[in-house]
Amino acid sequence: MRMYDLIMKKRNGAALTAEEMQYMITEYVAGRIPDYQMSAFLMAVYFKGMSEEETLAMTQAVAHSGDMVDLSGIEGSKIDKHSTGGVGDKTTLIIAPIVAACGAKVAKMSGRGLGHTGGTVDKLESIPGMHTSLDEKKFFEIVNQTGLCVIGQSGNLAPADKKLYALRDVTATVDSIPLIAVSIMSKKLAAGNDGILLDVKTGSGAFMKTVEDSIALAKEMVSIGENAGKKTVALITDMDIPLGHNIGNSLEIIEAVETLKGKGPSDLTEVCLQLAANMLFLAHKGSLKECRNMAQHALDSGKALERLIAMVEAQGGDVSVIRDTGKFPRAPFAHPVFAKKTGYITSMNAESCGIASAMLGAGRETKESQLDYAAGIIINSKTGDYVKEGQIIATLHASDESLFAAAEKRYLEAIQIGDEKPEEKPLVYARVTKEDVEKLF
Amino acid sequence: MRMYDLIMKKRNGAALTAEEMQYMITEYVAGRIPDYQMSAFLMAVYFKGMSEEETLAMTQAVAHSGDMVDLSGIEGSKIDKHSTGGVGDKTTLIIAPIVAACGAKVAKMSGRGLGHTGGTVDKLESIPGMHTSLDEKKFFEIVNQTGLCVIGQSGNLAPADKKLYALRDVTATVDSIPLIAVSIMSKKLAAGNDGILLDVKTGSGAFMKTVEDSIALAKEMVSIGENAGKKTVALITDMDIPLGHNIGNSLEIIEAVETLKGKGPSDLTEVCLQLAANMLFLAHKGSLKECRNMAQHALDSGKALERLIAMVEAQGGDVSVIRDTGKFPRAPFAHPVFAKKTGYITSMNAESCGIASAMLGAGRETKESQLDYAAGIIINSKTGDYVKEGQIIATLHASDESLFAAAEKRYLEAIQIGDEKPEEKPLVYARVTKEDVEKLF
Repeated sequence: MRMYDLIMKKRNGAALTAEEMQYMITEYVAGRIPDYQMSAFLMAVYFKGMSEEETLAMTQAVAHSGDMVDLSGIEGSKIDKHSTGGVGDKTTLIIAPIVAACGAKVAKMSGRGLGHTGGTVDKLESIPGMHTSLDEKKFFEIVNQTGLCVIGQSGNLAPADKKLYALRDVTATVDSIPLIAVSIMSKKLAAGNDGILLDVKTGSGAFMKTVEDSIALAKEMVSIGENAGKKTVALITDMDIPLGHNIGNSLEIIEAVETLKGKGPSDLTEVCLQLAANMLFLAHKGSLKECRNMAQHALDSGKALERLIAMVEAQGGDVSVIRDTGKFPRAPFAHPVFAKKTGYITSMNAESCGIASAMLGAGRETKESQLDYAAGIIINSKTGDYVKEGQIIATLHASDESLFAAAEKRYLEAIQIGDEKPEEKPLVYARVTKEDVEKLF
Repeated sequence: MRMYDLIMKKRNGAALTAEEMQYMITEYVAGRIPDYQMSAFLMAVYFKGMSEEETLAMTQAVAHSGDMVDLSGIEGSKIDKHSTGGVGDKTTLIIAPIVAACGAKVAKMSGRGLGHTGGTVDKLESIPGMHTSLDEKKFFEIVNQTGLCVIGQSGNLAPADKKLYALRDVTATVDSIPLIAVSIMSKKLAAGNDGILLDVKTGSGAFMKTVEDSIALAKEMVSIGENAGKKTVALITDMDIPLGHNIGNSLEIIEAVETLKGKGPSDLTEVCLQLAANMLFLAHKGSLKECRNMAQHALDSGKALERLIAMVEAQGGDVSVIRDTGKFPRAPFAHPVFAKKTGYITSMNAESCGIASAMLGAGRETKESQLDYAAGIIINSKTGDYVKEGQIIATLHASDESLFAAAEKRYLEAIQIGDEKPEEKPLVYARVTKEDVEKLF
């Protein structure tokens, strides 16, 4: 087998066999296929796409390039959740406790933030004392004991994906739907769960800017998951505006805890209930409607909050800040942002809001950047709200006052104010299963 | 400027500016743009093509990556000829003397053979004593004195093309018409002639297998040449069957000399007269019809042969073998190939004939292969000829009898014999100028 022939095959629109995909990925990781051949292949995939079988074969080859996690040491149904990334997306911190409270298991490996999106592991580390780097034994023990545990990605998970992603990043081949699907799903297959819920974000703050592209990506991923023998469902959820009110690490933990106490913003609460219901559905806990009721009950009864507290305690975190979020270390400086004119907020660019928060210290520009856990933004007024000139529409938090000017400018540029109340957008656009794309708007 | 943005631009179907092309080629040759980015760009060009301006800009950037030959030391009109490569293609050895005899100058740098096609420089070196590696002073002196000189490519001509071609060769991006055009024309622009005649071969033994593709390539190249200020014309000539009867280095010199003596095969003679006429037309020697008559006269009068003898003498070659081709060293072994059945030769795969000749020692498998100048094939019967079972259709020549079996097998596989006389194909399909594609069939 020669890589040249595989590039030619793909370039001419034919599909690689599973054996060819396996060869290509193995040899590439081993350094026996050079980057210049792989980048030509990836560009050919950008133009010619991949068949369903081919995408599955590539995903499995990438997944098997490293460790395949064996979660059989955890009892019950293990359900994973993946978000394609958004601004103010603290759903894992709310959903995982709800799902655990309803009897399914969440043994989750999460990522760190980069650019305008935050990472669950960073958010958790804003809880004093919290350990997110645990060995497998401890990880399993906590899941078996509390129903959930969230740690950073450990071990050698899908190393081919890291190498491929680094190459795509410099060769303009990132935004290919099959390649995105392979990248996400290879790590999900390697993580060893029984079911996978995909939260595909759509809109200005998401990687996928249109609902059509988001559905296309969701279909590819669900198809890979199901073809690999995992129950897989995707929800297409809105990321045209930030989710909830808080952006920033401890600020998002605070909002998640408030939501688990029943005092969260309605958009965040609703999205979490739908996501949690689908995870329970994947864990065979009942019909989707029954699962939704179970999730609602877990929230209302406080049982979900108890699970979060149990998890934080098991992972060494200070539970007093969860019980009373007022005890979280606060940023020394706060800076109000005022509406520039009177009218309706007609749109807010979620990506720019995320960048503004990162500029305050809440996010990373490079992998090496230090995070300021207390920094971020509390949003008062969102798209659809009527605001008066001079009214506070957000508050910026930082440890350094000199950061406010640029972040405020960026934030204000993201906000459009007009005379017409904008049409309300759905929170969840669609539910994608192996059989169907159910539009929910 | 960043290569990433240029890849993205091309991938999205936009055209690079001349400045961007210049940047890309300069940085690539300097090693500051890695192969993996260039191969992604080349694959994007494969799918999205290039505009006329873009192709010109890339060609000029590649041409200027090395030496630009200055032929002003040679008096008169300097006309170049380029063949896209074929089997039995000894036209340069016939045309250059004809053109020189008619008062235009041929200061030609030619290539060596690789794979199934031969190279003019190799053929010339089969003349004992012949020097094909001369310094510029000597090269100019010979052209000024005899009207023609053919040497190997010297100096640092279009180094970007060498680097790009090597990359295309391993990333399945060779067969892109704009990239082929850039590769050929960059070297033609660097070679510094006033006019360029392109002989675009078409058919089984050519790189371009169809007339349509050949015309498309011709149009691209003529457009580049004219846009760069060079008078450029292309002829689309047949390479579905080998040209003339002889394949091999000294065997082709012998046939070229015979043709200059008026005893050559009719197909070869006719193609050469048309090519020569077009070169004279590019040198402003008259109308195409007048040029054709001049070429015919140069051949009939023996003046063209005189020019070849003068050139060989000036380049140190033994002219006695030209005067009497019977003095050429012959291969020690000859092996007849017999027709397997009675009927018309309906087709012969020219590429396979070239490979059979290379297998006998006449061609190179790798750049390092040693050539056997006397080896090759003399074809007795070609497509359209009626042959009887057991009749000799070709004779193989080699220095080693053990080479005959495999070469004969290859040669016979290339020949189809059937009951119906095949339709005769044109020798020249079309003449492509800046203004027009004149179909000649």
